[in-house]
Amino acid sequence: MRAPASVAMRLEEIDTPALLVDLDAFEKNLFTLANAVKGHDVRVRAHAKTHKCPEIAKRQLSAGAIGVCCQKVAEAEAMVEGGIEDVLVSNEVVGAPKLGRLAALSKRARLGVCVDNRENLRQLEASGAELDVYLELDIGMRRCGIAPGEPALALAREIARSRTLRFAGLQAYHGRAQHVRSMAERRAAIQDAAQKVLMTKRLLHEERIACPVVTGAGSGSFMFEVESGAWNEIQPGSYVFMDADYARNEWAAPLPRFAHSLFVLATVMSRPAPDRAIVDAGLKASSVDSGMPSVWQNPGLVYAAASDEHGRLDIAPGVAAPALGEKLLLVPGHCDPTVNLYDWYVCVRQGVVEALWPITARGASL
Amino acid sequence: MRAPASVAMRLEEIDTPALLVDLDAFEKNLFTLANAVKGHDVRVRAHAKTHKCPEIAKRQLSAGAIGVCCQKVAEAEAMVEGGIEDVLVSNEVVGAPKLGRLAALSKRARLGVCVDNRENLRQLEASGAELDVYLELDIGMRRCGIAPGEPALALAREIARSRTLRFAGLQAYHGRAQHVRSMAERRAAIQDAAQKVLMTKRLLHEERIACPVVTGAGSGSFMFEVESGAWNEIQPGSYVFMDADYARNEWAAPLPRFAHSLFVLATVMSRPAPDRAIVDAGLKASSVDSGMPSVWQNPGLVYAAASDEHGRLDIAPGVAAPALGEKLLLVPGHCDPTVNLYDWYVCVRQGVVEALWPITARGASL
Repeated sequence: MRAPASVAMRLEEIDTPALLVDLDAFEKNLFTLANAVKGHDVRVRAHAKTHKCPEIAKRQLSAGAIGVCCQKVAEAEAMVEGGIEDVLVSNEVVGAPKLGRLAALSKRARLGVCVDNRENLRQLEASGAELDVYLELDIGMRRCGIAPGEPALALAREIARSRTLRFAGLQAYHGRAQHVRSMAERRAAIQDAAQKVLMTKRLLHEERIACPVVTGAGSGSFMFEVESGAWNEIQPGSYVFMDADYARNEWAAPLPRFAHSLFVLATVMSRPAPDRAIVDAGLKASSVDSGMPSVWQNPGLVYAAASDEHGRLDIAPGVAAPALGEKLLLVPGHCDPTVNLYDWYVCVRQGVVEALWPITARGASL
Repeated sequence: MRAPASVAMRLEEIDTPALLVDLDAFEKNLFTLANAVKGHDVRVRAHAKTHKCPEIAKRQLSAGAIGVCCQKVAEAEAMVEGGIEDVLVSNEVVGAPKLGRLAALSKRARLGVCVDNRENLRQLEASGAELDVYLELDIGMRRCGIAPGEPALALAREIARSRTLRFAGLQAYHGRAQHVRSMAERRAAIQDAAQKVLMTKRLLHEERIACPVVTGAGSGSFMFEVESGAWNEIQPGSYVFMDADYARNEWAAPLPRFAHSLFVLATVMSRPAPDRAIVDAGLKASSVDSGMPSVWQNPGLVYAAASDEHGRLDIAPGVAAPALGEKLLLVPGHCDPTVNLYDWYVCVRQGVVEALWPITARGASL
C-alpha cells in the first residue's frame, strides 16, 4: 500500500489519513519506562501486538528490553523476520497449521508460548516445537488461563515432565485492570492478582518445580506488579504510544506518565456549517472500540462521531474554526487496533518526516 | 499477507481468523437486488467501500450494476486497476496530492466526484481532471453536503459554467436513515429527504441546468428512494454481505431481505470454564463499532466481549459447549470496517473453498 509521505517532507505535506509517530515523544517513552524499572529485579519484554513493527521492537531492545511478546504466530514470524531473536507468544496457540509454523519458527529464534489446558499441551508436544512454555493463570481477567493454585500446579507438573518442552514459568496478565480509572482500585486489583501468583509459586516451590519467570503486566499497572515482588518480567505495550483511553486513567507515582507519540493526521474535507467540520479520518482510520479520538491540543474541537471514512468535529462557540484543507492531529482512542489499520508509520521529528517504518505485522492475525 | 486457505480445502481446514464469503448467499444477494429494482427507472451503482474488491465489483456489474462508488481516491485506483471502468467517488476530495491522482485516473476511466463548496470546486477545476461532478446535498445526515434549495442552486450554477467539469447531478445519501430500526421511521426519513431533492431539482429545472442523475441510497432504505421517484441511481453496498447490525433492522416489503454471506471463521482457543469459551477473533478480526458479532445459527453462544485478539463467548445453561479447536462462524457487527482488516476473501460453496479473492483496496484510505 502506498505510503502517505516521503522522508524530508514537512508535516503539512503529508497526505491523509496518515499514522504519525512523534519521534521525540516516542524516544522519551522508551527512556521513561527504562527509568521507572531501574533498580528493580525485573526485565522488560515489550509487547509488539501494539506496534507490529520490528523497527520499534529494535528500539525497545536498545532501551533495555530483553525481547518482545506477540499474540499471534504470524506476528512472531514478522518479528523474527525483522531480526528479533527472543519472542514470547503470550497466548495459546491452537490447531495444526499454527503449531507447525510455531515449531518451524522455534528453530530460528528463542520462542515461548502459553498453555492453559492439557489437550493443548499434548498438541504442543506433538508439534516438535522447542519451546519455553508458560502456564497462563487467570488472575482476574476471565479470558484465557487456568485457575491459580492446585489446577495450575497439576498442569505445571505435566509441563515439567515433558521431554521436549521447557517449563519457563507463569503468564499472569490482568488486562481488565489496565483501564480501571482510579489508582487505588487498579492497585487493589493487582495486589489481589499478586496473591494468586504468589500462592501458585509457593505450590510449585513445594513440589520443586522451578519457576524462573513470572511475566505479565501492562502499561496501566506495571509498577504495581513490579512493587508486589510477584513478577520478574513485565509486558507493557501501549507505553510507547499512549492513547486517548489510557489518558483517561488516573496517573500518579509509582506509575510514570507517558507522552502521546501516536497520532492520526487528518484533513478537514468539508465545512458544511459554522459549528461543524468533517475530517477524512473515520473508523477505518482510528479504531473507536474504546471511544472517539481526541483532537490534539484543541479542546474546542470535539470529534463527536465517526462513520466509516468521515469524522464529525463539533466546533465549540467562539473557537477558531479549522479551514478547508487544514490538517489536524488526532489522538486515537485505542492505539493497538488503530495501528492494525495502517501499513506505514510516518515518523516525524519537529515537523519533518525523518523515516517511514513499515508495519510488517499489520493484519498478521493467523 | 499469507492467505488462510487454499482452493479445494474444506471449511474445517481453513486457518483462523479468516474472512469467508458464502458464494451461494452472495450470489443470491446479487440476484435479490437486481430483482427488486427490475421495472423501475433506476440504475444500480454498487458501493465498493463495502467490499474493496474488483472481483466482487465485476460480479455486481454482471448482475446489472452500471459501475461502482468508492469513498477514497485510493479505492477508485484499485477498482480501475482491477478493470472497472466507471467509478464515482461519492465523496469530496481535498488537497493537491489526491486531486492530482484523481486527474490522472480520470484519463483512464469514467470518473465522478462530489463537491459541496466553492473552494473545493476551484481546486477541482485547477487539477485538470475530466470529471463528472455531483453536487452533494445534505438531506438529513449532517455530515458533508450543501443545503438543498438556493445554496445548492448557486453552487450548481458554478459547476455548470465550468469549462472542464461536467455537472452530472446530485449526490443525496441519507446514511443515518439506513439503521433506523422501524420501517415506518426509515420510510419517513427518506420521504423527507425526497422532498429536499425534488425541491432542488425543480430549482435546477427552472434555471435550465440539466440534472441527469440523482444518486444515493443504501442497503437499508433503497426501495424508499426508488419509490419516491426522486432518485434514478442507487448506491447500496452492504446488501452483498449483510451484517449483524443490519439484521437488527425491521425488514419488510418493499425492501427485500438479503442473506448473511460474510462470516469471520474463528477457532475456540481456550475453554477456561463451563460457561465460557474463548475464540481467536477479537476486535482486530471483527470491527465492534456497531456491536459485537453474533455466532451463526447458535443462539446459545453469545459473543459477549471482544479484546484485541480474543472474543469471549458466554455459553447458555444447557447448551452444548464448543470443543477446543472447534471452528465457529461469526456474523460481523459491521461488514465494511471488518472487511478492511483482511487481505483475502476465502470464498466457500457448500463447505469447500472455491476461490480466494484479494481485497486489493484494503487499507486504501488516501
